[in-house]
Amino acid sequence: MTMKDSQVYHIGGRKITVTRKNLQTEQENESSSASQVRPETMERITTPELANAFIEEQVQAIREQVGENGKVLLALSGGVDSSVVAALLIRAIGDRLTCVHVNHGLLRKGEPEMVIDVFRNQMNANLIYVDAVDRFLNKLRFISNPEWKRKIIGKEFINVFEEEAQKLKDVAFLAQGTIYPDIIESEKGVKAHHNVGGLPERMNMTLVEPIKFLYKDEVRVVGTALGLPDKMVYRQPFPGPGLGVRCLGAITRDRLEMVRESDAILREEFAAAGLEGKVWQYFTAIPNFKSVGVTDGKRTFAYPVIIRAINTTDAMTATVAEIPFDLLQKITARITAEVEGVNRVVFDLTPKPSGTIEWE
Amino acid sequence: MTMKDSQVYHIGGRKITVTRKNLQTEQENESSSASQVRPETMERITTPELANAFIEEQVQAIREQVGENGKVLLALSGGVDSSVVAALLIRAIGDRLTCVHVNHGLLRKGEPEMVIDVFRNQMNANLIYVDAVDRFLNKLRFISNPEWKRKIIGKEFINVFEEEAQKLKDVAFLAQGTIYPDIIESEKGVKAHHNVGGLPERMNMTLVEPIKFLYKDEVRVVGTALGLPDKMVYRQPFPGPGLGVRCLGAITRDRLEMVRESDAILREEFAAAGLEGKVWQYFTAIPNFKSVGVTDGKRTFAYPVIIRAINTTDAMTATVAEIPFDLLQKITARITAEVEGVNRVVFDLTPKPSGTIEWE
Repeated sequence: MTMKDSQVYHIGGRKITVTRKNLQTEQENESSSASQVRPETMERITTPELANAFIEEQVQAIREQVGENGKVLLALSGGVDSSVVAALLIRAIGDRLTCVHVNHGLLRKGEPEMVIDVFRNQMNANLIYVDAVDRFLNKLRFISNPEWKRKIIGKEFINVFEEEAQKLKDVAFLAQGTIYPDIIESEKGVKAHHNVGGLPERMNMTLVEPIKFLYKDEVRVVGTALGLPDKMVYRQPFPGPGLGVRCLGAITRDRLEMVRESDAILREEFAAAGLEGKVWQYFTAIPNFKSVGVTDGKRTFAYPVIIRAINTTDAMTATVAEIPFDLLQKITARITAEVEGVNRVVFDLTPKPSGTIEWE
Repeated sequence: MTMKDSQVYHIGGRKITVTRKNLQTEQENESSSASQVRPETMERITTPELANAFIEEQVQAIREQVGENGKVLLALSGGVDSSVVAALLIRAIGDRLTCVHVNHGLLRKGEPEMVIDVFRNQMNANLIYVDAVDRFLNKLRFISNPEWKRKIIGKEFINVFEEEAQKLKDVAFLAQGTIYPDIIESEKGVKAHHNVGGLPERMNMTLVEPIKFLYKDEVRVVGTALGLPDKMVYRQPFPGPGLGVRCLGAITRDRLEMVRESDAILREEFAAAGLEGKVWQYFTAIPNFKSVGVTDGKRTFAYPVIIRAINTTDAMTATVAEIPFDLLQKITARITAEVEGVNRVVFDLTPKPSGTIEWE
């Protein structure tokens, strides 16, 4: 793997921007550009049959790589990439895979529950669930600078994951949900995708990247073939720092709940209106700013919720999705009635550029 | 006039909330409920002919009230009510009317210029233009509480107007743009409408209220018959504290310019799309809150503009106007390209309740 710089880490589907100088030197020696190019003979995976063939092939490859007793560690975010890697590894090596799911308090409503339900209950995975909510929110108190917020979230994530990894014995392999666009971007110098915070070197671990030649649409076909539920396979893209960058400015627990609840209402209503999968990404955000309103004849001073709904092909540019006015009115009525502390809803009309997809 | 309390002053079309205890006692003695009821025989003014008849009648009434040498003072905001009173008085007594137009820096783009153009240049009025921009903005620095902002703007307006009034000699009358809904609301106890800050008593002035029995639609018919331009006669309602309550939080000169420029673009595009007069009120506001964006590949950290467009019959409740998506996209593109310091545009989806028409 060619290392351009050490800015972006890739933990499951989660990208984290932290600089660790100690990463670069050693790894540059092992980079092998040959192993980073998708074989030209590889057919695009578009059918269950092709997906099953790929799964069989990778199950063999994983077994070969880790051997009969090898143990593997995976940071499982619940995003499609890390979930597919988890399901592949469970099929290949069962409970020799340990999944670590870190709940940093910035996940969407129902997400930690879904990860536990799918992997622990349905797939019988060896899953460590880490409730790190207080730990993250305490670190983030009073931090309003968006860059600092991202760095704190990324750094703390690595700390938590590292602590969990150190509790385990004899784990020689680290699995990662790297996909082909990550490698292409890395090669181009757009982004550098790294493994988890220097863990492989420090703990003498080897990378396992079974889906590194897949495009996103192929990952989804494989995920479905592996029996993952649609709402996991077709999950919208979600930023690494989670709701932390949608609870704008300094994160408070009350506003974080407002983001989570309003986002759940938005997703529910978009699904009911048949917009799921038709709009590329939609979510809510809450600024650290109040406005005057009125309820039951009494003045209120509460937060507005921002609705963002966009379409994009490459995330480099994005257009605003046109949402039916009556649906927006319905969502507004529900959010202002059901989410405590919210008295207004606005719709973001800004394409990228001049906006970005997220607000911070 | 029945005095319920002394909260709301009425200066031209401008309502100002300031408490002045000294007002109440004396005026209650002169109240005469008989003179505050619209005569049942009075026909609704819907045609130029009826308007002209009303104008003739009022011109006579004003001449009778003020006598051959009487001088009248008027606070001319540029709103339809004070403008119609000004035009009526100019017809009745010419330059014995002195209009004072206070530019507090919180007017919309082009408004002070329009007042000067219409009244000084076209109607040859005796117009005193007071540039009080620095005075107001200095008083408002660092004040973020919406109520305090309103009080400071109202109090300072009275101070400025009083200073101008004291420079004049022998002015016995104060004209006011009170209209019939103001009187009805006052009678009901909803609002108490008062004259300018106790000026009539302190300066021994008598009120002249020629349009106090007219409804808003009649004021407009009369205004047109008096030769006032459409954009003055059909001007949208505008709050007394002006753009001050749309430059949210503590007012800064840069954000005030952003509100003014974005509002001008919005009005221009609504007019071009034929929405003028079809949407009851539309304007922009700017929170004291920035978000991340991108322009020419570079990260920006700038303000969002909020678009508000509502319909109402009584201003007690309001619905959000449905604006064509392509028009909103065009306005967004113009505002983010033309207004420096702005990188986003959002549309307020909130009816009243749970929002209010203004944001503060």
